[in-house]
Amino acid sequence: MSAVTWDDVDVARERIAPSARRTPVLTSSSIDRLSGSRVVFKCESFQRTGSFKFRGACNAVASLSPAERARGVYTHSSGNHAQALALAASIHGIPAYVVMPEGSSPIKVAATEGYGARVVSCLPTHRSRKEVAERVGVETGAAFVHPHDDPRVIAGQGTALCELIEEIGDLDVILAPVGGGGLLSGTAIAADRLAPNARVIGCEPAGADDAYRSIRAGRRITDFTPHTIADGLRTPLGETTFSILRDTIERIVLVPEEEIVNAMRVVWERMKIVIEPSSAVAVAPLLRRDSAWEGKRVGVILSGGNVDLSHFFADLEARGTSPA
Amino acid sequence: MSAVTWDDVDVARERIAPSARRTPVLTSSSIDRLSGSRVVFKCESFQRTGSFKFRGACNAVASLSPAERARGVYTHSSGNHAQALALAASIHGIPAYVVMPEGSSPIKVAATEGYGARVVSCLPTHRSRKEVAERVGVETGAAFVHPHDDPRVIAGQGTALCELIEEIGDLDVILAPVGGGGLLSGTAIAADRLAPNARVIGCEPAGADDAYRSIRAGRRITDFTPHTIADGLRTPLGETTFSILRDTIERIVLVPEEEIVNAMRVVWERMKIVIEPSSAVAVAPLLRRDSAWEGKRVGVILSGGNVDLSHFFADLEARGTSPA
Repeated sequence: MSAVTWDDVDVARERIAPSARRTPVLTSSSIDRLSGSRVVFKCESFQRTGSFKFRGACNAVASLSPAERARGVYTHSSGNHAQALALAASIHGIPAYVVMPEGSSPIKVAATEGYGARVVSCLPTHRSRKEVAERVGVETGAAFVHPHDDPRVIAGQGTALCELIEEIGDLDVILAPVGGGGLLSGTAIAADRLAPNARVIGCEPAGADDAYRSIRAGRRITDFTPHTIADGLRTPLGETTFSILRDTIERIVLVPEEEIVNAMRVVWERMKIVIEPSSAVAVAPLLRRDSAWEGKRVGVILSGGNVDLSHFFADLEARGTSPA
Repeated sequence: MSAVTWDDVDVARERIAPSARRTPVLTSSSIDRLSGSRVVFKCESFQRTGSFKFRGACNAVASLSPAERARGVYTHSSGNHAQALALAASIHGIPAYVVMPEGSSPIKVAATEGYGARVVSCLPTHRSRKEVAERVGVETGAAFVHPHDDPRVIAGQGTALCELIEEIGDLDVILAPVGGGGLLSGTAIAADRLAPNARVIGCEPAGADDAYRSIRAGRRITDFTPHTIADGLRTPLGETTFSILRDTIERIVLVPEEEIVNAMRVVWERMKIVIEPSSAVAVAPLLRRDSAWEGKRVGVILSGGNVDLSHFFADLEARGTSPA
């Protein structure tokens, strides 16, 4: 039996409903034309804290016992999970501790602290991250909430697809990005119940292809150095997510860097929404014509919209009144 | 009697319904907090061709007589009206001719041609633009559709506010940007019927303050050189829009350049949507605390989302896998 079941996702929906946003579903006639299919986009970029991560974090926090709540939660993350857990904890009025490597984006550190979490620095190595996190756990007695390899987190991530199917009905193909695998795992479990005929396809940067290789090899490959602009997808699969994905998804498609940037641009320019590179990884395959989706109804989970816009606005200010 | 009445707007709604998109209404808890008010954003950035201009162009084209349809439409525009009229004409299967000054953004020229319009070049002076447009009119016999000083266009622009009020109910304050005045005029006429107690406030770049000065002086001031990043708002009021605005709006607030850029950044970062500088002009005033909207229900028309992203994506590609 899977570590996460449909019932877990179903319970998560109710648990997070008071706090999470029901995100909009958008369509784009340009992308329909470019892909030859009818695409619906579930825009988790509009989720609180700017990514789907809030769903899983919120489900984990809402699942705690009263004794656990009193001691709070902790995690390690340099990205969207940090802010998501910080806000989820703040909403539930419990402490949150987040271990972030030195050199993390000052914007993300400030946002995490802004939601009321205590940020603890570590060195930018896996070992230091783990050691510092363990020390925080021992010192605070807080409950650990892993960014993706936690059944409560995976169940929470599955709720985005539930809302999508509820709103637009059945789908032939479902695309979601894969990094640690939490979103794709939750999506696959929800699809198995709500859209059992849909083909669930994971989308992964070619420069961080551990999930693709792990599933081919039948064992988890964690020893690799990611090279991708999709900063949310640089982490390896977890043990739980690997075991779920191995059994549930149809396949993983790999996306080269230039296709990621191009898909991001197409979405910004045509759909007028800000998505991060990790989201674009699940759009890029559609921009190559493929019989897998041509003429089909396709659902895409746009995972988040957290992009550092400092360069863009510094440039805009410098160019002043001549934006052309 | 006004050149444009509520009935004109009401008829425009039905006329454009088959072609125009009913755009989403978004809210932002961040902006509510920053402004101290409850703000609803009517997102015309999601309108077809990326701006509200499609509404007016579509209404004008749909109003033509069969004889006029056969000869098509023409206009002069270096901006959003060009694409809007091109698409409206294409949908109705009639020819469109657009006079665009040399040096117009190649992206906008390509988009206008992409919608099937014939683009005719002119020199980048008011005089050349007018002369070339007149020649096109004589040679083709097409009907002229002015970017803003046309009752059919003004009535069409008013339909955005109709949808907003229909969806969210009454408002205390309504903010819209003002350049040529078509959007603000249509909005004021619709508000007069649908939200008669709302204060309608025009938002104008301080670097292109002709509407502000015209209304103060009681006569139309057209002799000025605009200096603003808000490229959609560099044009002076028309005669029709001046006469409407003089009688309908509460006042015009002026927005300095740095507040335009800052508001644009706040919207991109917090709301995760791409808006153009002209849209940001109607958001900026809210980011200063003001008793006019504090504690009030505020509606903002986000006019469009057409921004040249070439610099941003060139930069992103150059920075490659390290987007921080």
